This record gives sequence, structure tokens and C-alpha cells, in this order.
Amino acid sequence: MANADVHRSSTFAPVNIAVIKYWGKRDTALNLPTNSSLSITLSQDDLRTHTTASCSLKYTRDALVLNGEDQDISGARTQACLRELRGLRKEVEAKDGSVPELSGMALKIVSENNFPTAAGLASSAAGFAALVRAIADLYALPSPPAELSRIARQGSGSACRSLFGGYVAWKMGEETDGSDSAAYEVAPAQHWPDMRALILVASAEKKDVSSTVGMQATVKTSERFAHRAENIVPARMAATEECVKSRDFATFADLTMRDSNNFHATCLDTSPPIFYMNDTSRAAVRVCEAINTHAGRTICAYTFDAGPNAVVYYLAETEAQVAGAFRGIVGHKTGWDNSRGRAIQAGEVPKGMEIAAEMLENGVSRVILTAVGDGPRRTEEHLC
Amino acid sequence: MANADVHRSSTFAPVNIAVIKYWGKRDTALNLPTNSSLSITLSQDDLRTHTTASCSLKYTRDALVLNGEDQDISGARTQACLRELRGLRKEVEAKDGSVPELSGMALKIVSENNFPTAAGLASSAAGFAALVRAIADLYALPSPPAELSRIARQGSGSACRSLFGGYVAWKMGEETDGSDSAAYEVAPAQHWPDMRALILVASAEKKDVSSTVGMQATVKTSERFAHRAENIVPARMAATEECVKSRDFATFADLTMRDSNNFHATCLDTSPPIFYMNDTSRAAVRVCEAINTHAGRTICAYTFDAGPNAVVYYLAETEAQVAGAFRGIVGHKTGWDNSRGRAIQAGEVPKGMEIAAEMLENGVSRVILTAVGDGPRRTEEHLC
Repeated sequence: MANADVHRSSTFAPVNIAVIKYWGKRDTALNLPTNSSLSITLSQDDLRTHTTASCSLKYTRDALVLNGEDQDISGARTQACLRELRGLRKEVEAKDGSVPELSGMALKIVSENNFPTAAGLASSAAGFAALVRAIADLYALPSPPAELSRIARQGSGSACRSLFGGYVAWKMGEETDGSDSAAYEVAPAQHWPDMRALILVASAEKKDVSSTVGMQATVKTSERFAHRAENIVPARMAATEECVKSRDFATFADLTMRDSNNFHATCLDTSPPIFYMNDTSRAAVRVCEAINTHAGRTICAYTFDAGPNAVVYYLAETEAQVAGAFRGIVGHKTGWDNSRGRAIQAGEVPKGMEIAAEMLENGVSRVILTAVGDGPRRTEEHLC
Repeated sequence: MANADVHRSSTFAPVNIAVIKYWGKRDTALNLPTNSSLSITLSQDDLRTHTTASCSLKYTRDALVLNGEDQDISGARTQACLRELRGLRKEVEAKDGSVPELSGMALKIVSENNFPTAAGLASSAAGFAALVRAIADLYALPSPPAELSRIARQGSGSACRSLFGGYVAWKMGEETDGSDSAAYEVAPAQHWPDMRALILVASAEKKDVSSTVGMQATVKTSERFAHRAENIVPARMAATEECVKSRDFATFADLTMRDSNNFHATCLDTSPPIFYMNDTSRAAVRVCEAINTHAGRTICAYTFDAGPNAVVYYLAETEAQVAGAFRGIVGHKTGWDNSRGRAIQAGEVPKGMEIAAEMLENGVSRVILTAVGDGPRRTEEHLC
């Protein structure tokens, strides 16, 4: 019976970690930011959301299942994404009467992360990117990634950057309806394929303040916030894009570390103050500094999102020095074997790192070795 | 034999803890700050430096003994203080030929703190204030405290504020020779005698970066530093002076917490970043916030200097709620008995403080209960 047909499409979508941070919304309903941002898309071999979107006349209502658990789909953000995608499908159907009327069917979205959801690893970015990409494929939408990124942005701001691979910028835009606030590719992963990332996952600790609540508090109370958004970030965006284009790691690293620190300083200047970095994070900063000092040049850069996990960027050629030093400190934690043939030996630990090493020993639960990667990939592996 | 006479004078000098922070020097040789600051002088019953200055023809060279150990006295800062004080003594001697020529004799300065020197409790402020005050008394200088504060400033910037009791401001001044950069009394301790301070002394951890080195790095590398010095602090100085005059604790507390956070945000925005607050400090912040929330009004304020120790200001009338809550968490640490008749019972600990309590339990080594107090006091108790 044709009415019982299930239409289905699946995708993998990647995580991205910003080097110029998104913090502050000028419109909370539309997720419009107060500054542009720039991120690196990480390899889906290591971190990814796998999502199957299906629709059928036999489904009675929209549903979302994440990691085996039913999720509330009634939130304004998810609804905004579904509404926009259905609207685009209706346009397709209006142009071609022969295609099935999928826009009128209930949707079932099944999603799984291959990493711990609560570990503060940008799961909502990968999640909304996968949701939008999978439904767009299901609906056979002709929309380019930039348009899908504008839709994903309404689900979770940073999700807009996970619609692209490689080096990605999110242009804040100026329009009040958000029509020009979307991501674009600064350079594909192939342009600078040697970028590596070591993630030190901090032991579970309840997140200090949710990003959305924190951003609003910062915008309202920090006397420095406007200066960051209006003066500091625009200059750094331009400089970081240049570094990516010219593959200038040292300058890229310097900008990355400065912007992470500036973002966390803005959080600390919020009233009441927001702390995302903890003693483990500080220890990771000190080890990165010591690695750079020992190397005599800047070969690694730390960055921290709205949580204590350290993401350490470096190039493949210095893997032994950077990842090796960390393996020398937390080499018995899980995650080092997942290196796809990259044999990382415990390397030299810079001197004077005894206290930092003890902090990392106590505060890091696992590591993730990954690298710059591609954008969403369609797959025929369907979930349920 | 008259030539062997020893001339001697002794003083006690207090510690002060800033509520509007001093951070950044416009002249490192003269210790001239980039912004004004405001502090509370703490009671010498609890924290003080005791210094005896003596001079004699039988002494062969200037010497400084701190807590029983010989100190290097050749540093430019100590030398600047001695030079200025000797110059003023020479003026006294020039005017009155009958007084002994003490300016020509070697000085011996013996100093003792009644608190751990390395605990990050502003020992250099009390130390230089005591040194200057004791020598000024020895030399019978007619100089008012403001002039002595200008001299002490050259030893350690914040020392200038320890020449006065109560509520003290250090006016940054404008002159390049520092002649107008000195402290003045905003209000004596008696004006608002109910101010209390609970100090949570953090377990020994090596100081991240010395204040002098840190300040220079901030001035050079923080994109936000100038904004703090030029815009934020001047407005806060005026507002805080007003709060002291009108005894408006809630507004005073709000300004105190904001300025501490703004100062530490400036440190974090320095490249490489400076961290003085640690996880124990963050826990103290959360407990203060919870105490205020539980009380339904602002009854305590945290502030952190260049180290992890929390100083919690509150009024005597709320001691049971503020100090009581902390006694409920770290009640078995030393220091609670030193309360000069103030019987502080373990009080109610606000809900949701389990993680913060564990952090404080692990990270606080002792507590100090103190209060606003007077300026330096001359004493006939001489050291050696």
C-alpha cells in the first residue's frame, strides 16, 4: 500500500570548534549573533552525529529520538527549522506536481552521536546540522549549504558552521530577519589538511551556566562586552581568515589563544561571573605554553568553549612534540589508541609542569585525537 | 660612650585589601599606577607588621631583617624609600643644629609579620608602610601621612594605602615625578566600624605570576586594559567613595565584586593569560552568591587580590549569616577561635553548595576573621 511508504534519508554531520568565538545574541528568537565567528570542522571519523530523517503518511506526529531517547520536539528552535524546511519542500512540490507531498507528512528523526552527548563537545551544533541536512536530503531541496546553514542557525547558532567542512566562518549579518546571517567556507579541509586537534575531555562537572543564559547575562552586564563584539572580533576575523588562506600556523595559534582568553575574560566580567575554565583547563594552558616555549616557536594553540574541555590545535608535523607531550602526562587515559594509524608515543614533558601534570591527571577523563574534516556526508546507513 | 648610642623607634602597620583594584603601572621605577584604587585597612589585632627602625654610629651598613632572616636591602625600591627619608631628616637637621645627625648613620630595620608572609596577604603593603612609618618616627619627621604614603608607594604601590586606617583611596595623580600620587583617607574606621572581613586562606600554591611582571604584561597585551583604567575605574572610584560615606553596603558590595571580577578578567585577557583565581576561589564566589540569594539582599561581597585567597566583606549585623555559613562548611579549619569574643556558630549552608563545599574543604587551609581597623600605631615594644 503506497500510503504506508516510508521516505528516508540519512546523513553524518560533524562537530566544529570555534577559534574566534560566538558569544552574545542580538536576537534570541532567531539566534542572531553580536559578532561573526570562525571555526574548524572536525573529522567525522572521530566525532559525528548520525541522523536519519523519515516521513510517512502512517506517522501520526513529528518525533525526535536522540541516542535512543524520545526528545521534546515542541521547542521554538526545532520548530523553526522544521517550518522552514517544510516551506522549501512546498515550493518544490508546487513546481513539480509529480513529486510526493512529503511536506504534509509527519517526520521522524532518529539521531545518534558517536561521542558522549554531555561532554561539552558541541553536540547541539552537529545535531542541528545533521537534522537540517537529513531533512533537506529527504525533501530533495535544491538549497545550497549556505541556505541550510541559515536554517540550522535557528536551531543552534554554531550549528550553521557544521554545514561546511574545513575552515568555516559565520557572518553575523545585518538584517533584522537574519536572512544574511549564515556560514560560508573560508577554505576546504584539503587546503590545509594537516590541522590536528587533541581534545582533553574534562571529568564530568555540571556546566556552570547554559550558553544561552550566559550570553544574555554577558550582553546585559559586562562593560567590556560591546568592545569585544565591535572592535576586537572584527579585526581578528579578518586576520584569522588570512592565516587560514596563507597557512600561517603561528599567527593562527596566537589569535586562537587570545580569542579564547578574551571570550572567557568576558564571561568572568559578567555579573554574576561565569566560569567555564577550571583548574584542569588552566593546567592545559600552562602545558601548551611550555610546549611552545620548549619548541622555540608556536606549535600548538589551546581553545576552550563554554566548558572546561581543552581543544589543542597543532599541525601533523609537530604531533610527536605536542600530542606526545600530553601523552607523556595523561598517556594512560582512554582515547590514545583511536588514532587511525597515528602512533603517538609518550614524548618529552616540558620542565616545571609537575603541578600542571597532577591537575591534568586528576581532571582529564579521556582524550580524543582528531583533525580537520569534511562537511556533512550523505549515507545509506539508516537508523531504524 | 655617646657614639655607641642606638636611636630606635617602633611601629605596627596594617594590611589593606583593595575593593577597587590597583593593576597596571604607568611608571615602574616610581610605582605610579594607571588607575586610582580604594581599600579597607584591616585590624592590626589580626594582621600586622611590627617594625623597629634603629640607627647608630656603631652600625656599619644598612640592614633589614624580616622574620629573623637577613633581606637584600639593595633593591631600587627599598633604596628609594631610605633616600627620601634620609633627605627629609637632613632638612630637620639643617633647621635645628641641636638634633643628632641620624641621617648619616646606618639603619637597622627589624620586621616581623604576625601572619604567614607567603600567604598572599598583602605583606609587602604592611611591610613598606611599617618601614616608612618607623623610620619617619625615628627621624622625628614632621611629614603628614600623605607625604609618607607617597614615599611608601615607591617601596610597594599598595603600601601607600596602609599609612591610613579605615577607608582609603590612592589617587593615581598626574605628575610624571609622582609627587601627587599618594593615599588619602576617605573615611576613618569609626565612620563605618561594622565592616567585617573573613579571609579564606587558600592552600599553598605557587603564585602564578608576580604582580609586577603581571601588571606589565597586562599593560602591554590586553586589549581591554585601557578601557578598565580610563573608563571603568574612575566611575567606580567615585561611586565607591559615595557608598562608604553613606554606609550603603549593598551598592558597596556590588561594586566590590564587579571590580574584582573585572580585574581578574583583565588578567585573563593578558597574553599569556594570568590566572590568580582557582577552583577554590570560584567555590567561594558561588557560596557568597548563594548567601546573598538566601538572604534576599546583598549582605556579603567577595574580592580576590593577585592570588586565590577570598576576602569576604560583610557587616557585623549579618555575621551569623555570612561567617556562620562559611563556618558550616569549613568550620574545623584553624582561625575561627581568633574572633576576639565573637562567637561564630556554624550556620545554615545555602542549598546546592555541595560541590562548592567540597572545593572549599579541599582548598582552604585556614580562615582569618578580622575587621576594618586603624592606621599605623607607634609602640614601645622594640624588636631586638
